[in-house]
Amino acid sequence: MFIKSLNSIPIEKVNAGKDTFRQILIGSDEAPNFAMRRFIIEPGGEIPNHTNTVEHEQLVLNGRAKVGIGDETFEVRKNDVVFIPANVPHWYKTEGDDAFEFLCMVPNQEDIIEILEYKKRKRP
Amino acid sequence: MFIKSLNSIPIEKVNAGKDTFRQILIGSDEAPNFAMRRFIIEPGGEIPNHTNTVEHEQLVLNGRAKVGIGDETFEVRKNDVVFIPANVPHWYKTEGDDAFEFLCMVPNQEDIIEILEYKKRKRP
Repeated sequence: MFIKSLNSIPIEKVNAGKDTFRQILIGSDEAPNFAMRRFIIEPGGEIPNHTNTVEHEQLVLNGRAKVGIGDETFEVRKNDVVFIPANVPHWYKTEGDDAFEFLCMVPNQEDIIEILEYKKRKRP
Repeated sequence: MFIKSLNSIPIEKVNAGKDTFRQILIGSDEAPNFAMRRFIIEPGGEIPNHTNTVEHEQLVLNGRAKVGIGDETFEVRKNDVVFIPANVPHWYKTEGDDAFEFLCMVPNQEDIIEILEYKKRKRP
């Protein structure tokens, strides 16, 4: 077993995103079935459209964002629960003056990430 | 995919606990690998010592509690991350005047729950 304070966990930059950071709360090496991460997107930041080969179970902890999932766009905010199935394109763009923070759980399976931003920008 | 507001999700009483409630944020029937639940223990409430046959990955969302895990007792509060392996006895007792709220993820596997409170009370 273990207990950690969120504030004691290192924060790393997510290079695929703009002004995006990540903490590994429970790593795939620390638990048998799934990992718990926190993402922080500073105001004005974004994560470009991409796919993962694993699903995401998310809870918004702070702030607001536009989230694209498949061909739809949603406004999400603190206390929204978001489920993104494996291989479904998704992106995030903050709204307002607060950091957008969310918990994101993924199974302990290989995750191949494909950035689709270039394709998205080519759309009319 | 789906998006839900926390406030729209039914709250059910947890009969094994005192003043304890639960919301199923993402059920085992809604996602392939693991479920996301929120537990709320009102001030003065508790969950007795018990074991589960699945592990718990938890994040404290609000309040404070004493948590017993195995033979140790911890004080946890908002933003603490807690990992409880399968089959390790654990219990919760709120501290202070706020509800103790935590997110608790479990794998989509059979969970057999054994209440150990009677044994605990027999200890000197």
